[in-house]
Amino acid sequence: MYVSESININNIGHLTIGGCDTVELAAKYGTPLYVIDETGIRKNCRKFVNSIKEHYDGNGRVLYASKAFCCKEMCRIVESEDMGLDVVSGGELYTALSAGFPADRIYFHGNNKTPSELKEAITAGVGRIVVDNKEELDYICSLAGTMNRTAYVYLRIKPGIDAHTHKFIKTGQIDSKFGFALETGEAMEAVKLCFSTANVELVGLHCHIGSQIFDITPFAHAAEVMIKFLADIKKETGVELRELDLGGGFGIKYKLADRPEDFSAYMKKVADSVKSTAREYGIELPYILIEPGRGIVGAEGLTLYRVGSIKNIPDVRTYVSVDGGMGDNPRYILYQAEYEVVCANKADLTRTRTVTVAGKCCESGDLIQENTLLQEVEPGDLLAVLSTGAYCYSMASNYNRIPRPPVIMVKDGEPRIIVNRESYERLVEDDV
Amino acid sequence: MYVSESININNIGHLTIGGCDTVELAAKYGTPLYVIDETGIRKNCRKFVNSIKEHYDGNGRVLYASKAFCCKEMCRIVESEDMGLDVVSGGELYTALSAGFPADRIYFHGNNKTPSELKEAITAGVGRIVVDNKEELDYICSLAGTMNRTAYVYLRIKPGIDAHTHKFIKTGQIDSKFGFALETGEAMEAVKLCFSTANVELVGLHCHIGSQIFDITPFAHAAEVMIKFLADIKKETGVELRELDLGGGFGIKYKLADRPEDFSAYMKKVADSVKSTAREYGIELPYILIEPGRGIVGAEGLTLYRVGSIKNIPDVRTYVSVDGGMGDNPRYILYQAEYEVVCANKADLTRTRTVTVAGKCCESGDLIQENTLLQEVEPGDLLAVLSTGAYCYSMASNYNRIPRPPVIMVKDGEPRIIVNRESYERLVEDDV
Repeated sequence: MYVSESININNIGHLTIGGCDTVELAAKYGTPLYVIDETGIRKNCRKFVNSIKEHYDGNGRVLYASKAFCCKEMCRIVESEDMGLDVVSGGELYTALSAGFPADRIYFHGNNKTPSELKEAITAGVGRIVVDNKEELDYICSLAGTMNRTAYVYLRIKPGIDAHTHKFIKTGQIDSKFGFALETGEAMEAVKLCFSTANVELVGLHCHIGSQIFDITPFAHAAEVMIKFLADIKKETGVELRELDLGGGFGIKYKLADRPEDFSAYMKKVADSVKSTAREYGIELPYILIEPGRGIVGAEGLTLYRVGSIKNIPDVRTYVSVDGGMGDNPRYILYQAEYEVVCANKADLTRTRTVTVAGKCCESGDLIQENTLLQEVEPGDLLAVLSTGAYCYSMASNYNRIPRPPVIMVKDGEPRIIVNRESYERLVEDDV
Repeated sequence: MYVSESININNIGHLTIGGCDTVELAAKYGTPLYVIDETGIRKNCRKFVNSIKEHYDGNGRVLYASKAFCCKEMCRIVESEDMGLDVVSGGELYTALSAGFPADRIYFHGNNKTPSELKEAITAGVGRIVVDNKEELDYICSLAGTMNRTAYVYLRIKPGIDAHTHKFIKTGQIDSKFGFALETGEAMEAVKLCFSTANVELVGLHCHIGSQIFDITPFAHAAEVMIKFLADIKKETGVELRELDLGGGFGIKYKLADRPEDFSAYMKKVADSVKSTAREYGIELPYILIEPGRGIVGAEGLTLYRVGSIKNIPDVRTYVSVDGGMGDNPRYILYQAEYEVVCANKADLTRTRTVTVAGKCCESGDLIQENTLLQEVEPGDLLAVLSTGAYCYSMASNYNRIPRPPVIMVKDGEPRIIVNRESYERLVEDDV
């Protein structure tokens, strides 16, 4: 039903998620409300983990990209699924460690890690630091030396692939704030620099070609490029790096019409590409890593809003205003992101009206969705915006000093709070 | 100097704000850092207050639009300048009341105030509630009745003016989630409904035509439209409303080339328009209100960042990465907002390099400014992004779980913390 198997309609016409009636959830916890289904999340985790077992003899690891949705409970779930964690800041690292996540399964990313973040990462003993640039490499070397530690690192490589245009445009990809460029020789230089740098052990490479990608081809192509580079490194230095992190970016279903490839098909094609290229260039099969974030949580979450004012402007459009907006979901104003919107208390009725769902912020651009199909609604109705599990809570702000909504995790009909609703007191807690 | 009189360069070539050396501020409080000058803010407050004295016999009030930058200390400053406060949420109301701001000088706005926010506003006894729609009016009536109170309200009117295109396009303006439309008769209906609604006393009207507007003409035109509507109301109902809130939207200097009109010129033209239209239509001069937000704080604040990695991509561009980004300033990724960027520790040198200043978020779009002039910089240098006093701290998020920077207020060479740096502990405080 809808965008995820977690979502359904019960016999009184209410939308359900993880077996919980959304109307009851809203009554119990208030609105706006993020709701996310544990069963769906775990199912997705296993789908990714199993794909590596099935198509690559289990010779790899799935890292959850925590920037999609990070809180302590999410870290615990990822841990219990035997996965690793991709963190991009000291705050994400702190959250993971607070949740008891084992440091050696944490991979630290970022184009501009601060000195204190690098110190935190080395102190915690994270599994891998994905080095983005030369300044960082220098700093890690000196820091690890001072701390008498060895830092195990990957290098982030720009493989020269622009997945979004489905063309392999070099300039498009080389024009990125992330990583070392392959084409210019910068990447090879960085590899050699690592080998001559004390306290740093280069164990692998990383690449990432984009986000919300539906086409498998660029992923397979990136894998091929990276394997060739591993072979080049072997040829030039004699060293065979054994780990290859292929990043994330797998597309999910936002709109009913979206047809993301099954992840197993992705993994098969990528694994085939890795195997055949490795065979061709005579290198051992590397341990591979993949980094789904959105692919794990995106479609398993939804946001519930209460309808307030409805303005039918003849010959123009109908605005349905809700009690949240760009504060809890900035993706429409940022990217004009598309979503399915459903009246949760009338989910069994057909969506016949085209409306614009507006937020409550004092900003004209604060819209949740324009020209979207919806049931006939009236003030007091409950709206569900689907596929908000990723990049909504994690991007939420207090714009207009609106407290951030809580996150409710549901599982087999049982809801529990995993992030509390922000209180007014919290808003001023740091004010002097 | 630069965008504000508060900003200068000292004899060792460092950028200063409010008499404080930004290099010292960064050393003392860390980066990223918001810094804002109290003297500049107060000067702007008085400029607005005096303009009403000078051109309108002081028959009005300046409301600070707190959504631009809201914290307890800012509310205290506004209070001490004898101004009123425009709030748009329960959170802003709570902040103001926590700071001891007198409720009767608070004006409550918003296109979709929630029932609990309206209750909070009436309980606190705010000066005016600016009613946006019919559902809200009904709710206020029943709520005020239950509480045995009278709610003093304005109606938010769409004057049919699109200031951004500088054309008075009706459909452009009528297509808004805010307010009652004039053209359709909806506004007049709402006025009459107020007169027949118990526990609600309609005392005035409100309009707002846009943001960051440089041209005075649409403001004067909106004032004319609103005065005519006051005259229409008098004619149709016999009632002469005595208060007119003309909103905000006054443009500030972001780029050196920006030439915002002096506010006194704005006030003169608007006051002239109000007076002549009132005379023409035979109504008393109303008490007027104006709502600057950005105009008070925008150019008085700046953000300090430390430079990390620098990537010079031949024939493409140079990325200068800093230790903040879209989390503390989402205005570039949202609106491609323009800013002046200065190397704070080399402020006396000429800006000769064209660079792109990138943030540290794991998102390609996380840029602070593209193709901007900057001094020759190296890792460790300090950058100042100017005119970030408005809509940066207030729109900040914890994206990538990066803690929000503190706000330092400076005055005559003395800095003090007015908002503390968010701690890692705070990030997980609401996590279960």
